[in-house]
Amino acid sequence: MKTIHNLVLSFLAVSACIAMAHSQTPPSDDFKPSRLNQPGQEYPQVNSQGYVRFRIQAPQAQSVSATLGGRGGTPLTKGPDGVWTGMTARPEDEGFHYYHLSIDGGVFNDPGTLNFYGSTRWESGVEIPAHDEDFYSMKAVPHGQVQQILFPSKTNGMAVFKTAYVYTPPDYQKSGRKRYPVLYLQHGWGEDEHAWWNQGRANLIMDNLIADGKAKPFIVVMAYGQTNEAFRPGGGARPAAGQRPNFNDMIARTGFESTLTDDLIPYVDANFRTQADQKHRAMAGLSMGGMETHFIALKRLDLFSDIGLFSGGVVTPDDVNAAKGFKDKVKVVFCSCGSRENPTAINANHDALEKIGIKNTAYVSPNTAHEFLTWRRSLYQFAPLLFQ
Amino acid sequence: MKTIHNLVLSFLAVSACIAMAHSQTPPSDDFKPSRLNQPGQEYPQVNSQGYVRFRIQAPQAQSVSATLGGRGGTPLTKGPDGVWTGMTARPEDEGFHYYHLSIDGGVFNDPGTLNFYGSTRWESGVEIPAHDEDFYSMKAVPHGQVQQILFPSKTNGMAVFKTAYVYTPPDYQKSGRKRYPVLYLQHGWGEDEHAWWNQGRANLIMDNLIADGKAKPFIVVMAYGQTNEAFRPGGGARPAAGQRPNFNDMIARTGFESTLTDDLIPYVDANFRTQADQKHRAMAGLSMGGMETHFIALKRLDLFSDIGLFSGGVVTPDDVNAAKGFKDKVKVVFCSCGSRENPTAINANHDALEKIGIKNTAYVSPNTAHEFLTWRRSLYQFAPLLFQ
Repeated sequence: MKTIHNLVLSFLAVSACIAMAHSQTPPSDDFKPSRLNQPGQEYPQVNSQGYVRFRIQAPQAQSVSATLGGRGGTPLTKGPDGVWTGMTARPEDEGFHYYHLSIDGGVFNDPGTLNFYGSTRWESGVEIPAHDEDFYSMKAVPHGQVQQILFPSKTNGMAVFKTAYVYTPPDYQKSGRKRYPVLYLQHGWGEDEHAWWNQGRANLIMDNLIADGKAKPFIVVMAYGQTNEAFRPGGGARPAAGQRPNFNDMIARTGFESTLTDDLIPYVDANFRTQADQKHRAMAGLSMGGMETHFIALKRLDLFSDIGLFSGGVVTPDDVNAAKGFKDKVKVVFCSCGSRENPTAINANHDALEKIGIKNTAYVSPNTAHEFLTWRRSLYQFAPLLFQ
Repeated sequence: MKTIHNLVLSFLAVSACIAMAHSQTPPSDDFKPSRLNQPGQEYPQVNSQGYVRFRIQAPQAQSVSATLGGRGGTPLTKGPDGVWTGMTARPEDEGFHYYHLSIDGGVFNDPGTLNFYGSTRWESGVEIPAHDEDFYSMKAVPHGQVQQILFPSKTNGMAVFKTAYVYTPPDYQKSGRKRYPVLYLQHGWGEDEHAWWNQGRANLIMDNLIADGKAKPFIVVMAYGQTNEAFRPGGGARPAAGQRPNFNDMIARTGFESTLTDDLIPYVDANFRTQADQKHRAMAGLSMGGMETHFIALKRLDLFSDIGLFSGGVVTPDDVNAAKGFKDKVKVVFCSCGSRENPTAINANHDALEKIGIKNTAYVSPNTAHEFLTWRRSLYQFAPLLFQ
């Protein structure tokens, strides 16, 4: 017992030292403009450890802060030149992060950065280069196209034409009559059809996988899941006051299922050279998009053969038993999350599925949370499994 | 003489009455959220006369104003609820307008609106519905796609891959081996490859023209003209201090000519089903993009047969005489501007060209200035003339 006691003490002591060392290491001076800055803008900047520093011109402002940098964000201080500056108190995770500024009690974007739709608004974005960024970088390989489509939609009453983006692989334009499988890939709550090819870099991930021969060329369709409008007060999908949210019920009430199955899939199959059958159609999504995938794909195994849930729950043994013909129809089951989310649940569910004879993949993204590096990596792991 | 004198007096009196009536007409109370607002955002709002009103939350701010509304912009006033509101002092022209907010001496975007790249930054945008907006509205007609392409570029050293957007007409995806002519369509100074299909609505204008049988289906390529980077201090294209700008020289130094002719055109011809010859290739642009067109297309009549300058100068008789083979090679010459720009010069040049036997079109957009409604209308007038 004494040995174990000492071991525990030693572990605690070492952990404390590491924590102190971490907090005491001064931020290194290798700051560079974030890659997501607007053309010519020097700030925000990021360094090799993941610290972010901001610089905002607003000489008469009373208070300026950025929402990045943990709870409470990062307060900025005004210099004698009237310029507000500040640095996150801790390094951020590698990858993409949303944030915005609070200026004198109002919400504004950092004029230095490009904007990305998240939290139901166009937000500022910053990119911490990841040690494994090669897989989502723009490299000297053949590149596919991302196409904006306007597809007619009779459902949901939100618009006569809805917007989606379609990735076609590099050889699509020149391959004559060749037909391709299709992955329907959904964004998370607060985002929209722009997320996967901007924040997610889905097109570059696919270009790189295809160039390396690691994934079959396939089409990726990125549509709006209609969750944001529906989840607003009065939007029809919110639970009544005092009731617990039932996500399946909420997703059902967005109307996205019929947009997808009655409008979008027929449009894509009519306008692109798809392999228009169940075996060559997959669905995946991140967070709320994972829940949509869980809800829609399991109901419609006549349409989808492969399922990916990225930080969006799991396909359980109960799901398998409830979905008629699951074992015959479903070829790929993939569930993932960041190591800072709930990897135990992902791994336990993996084993439970294997036990009832369902081959499946559980993937845990190292040192990431509920954020885009988790999902970029998930797509990178998921895509090679599809349509084999 | 007396009669003329009276007539002049009457005219002046009537004009004054109209001006007074105009300035005294209270803004009508039919304000609606601008169509370019972010999802769910109520402000900015526009009314049927073209007034714009703003609403900004920033309770501790000292001063808030919007740059829209003539010189000096529109100052906003803080209400007891800490919300800043204000309205333009005069109606704005119909169509699209850029603006931004000044908050306590800093430049920020209105959190209510979508952003559009102009003035070398992503700006707020507002849309005043035009009486003739039908031609650029999203209607129940077949829609083409707008594709993001990443094309390899060896020139200019700015990037290994450059981004452009390609509009393909509605029947492109399903027309098998059919080949299409191509229009290269350039944005203005401060803008980029996003301008024509967002601010300009080029894809919807083409969809509507094609649906009405008024234009032949053709491909439109919208690339970045590299002017913004090059025109920055130290960017290589600025005239030395004290020297007058020579736009041809400046455009030459951006390197865009070789990006266009050596990289982009070959990529488009290799990856899209184009009619890859001079007779089926046109170039046009707005403002600085018109100057690029003037500079590049007149030099390269081996590549381009049709030329459009929208608020971007004119093709003069001297140009015709200087460009070898002009009369044989050029099929369409189109010069336009807004009625509040310099219509006299456009019309005089039209006549001068006709005099030397060059059939050409001069178009003046009614009641518009150097702004996007001028250029949307110009494209609508220009496209039907092409490739006939």
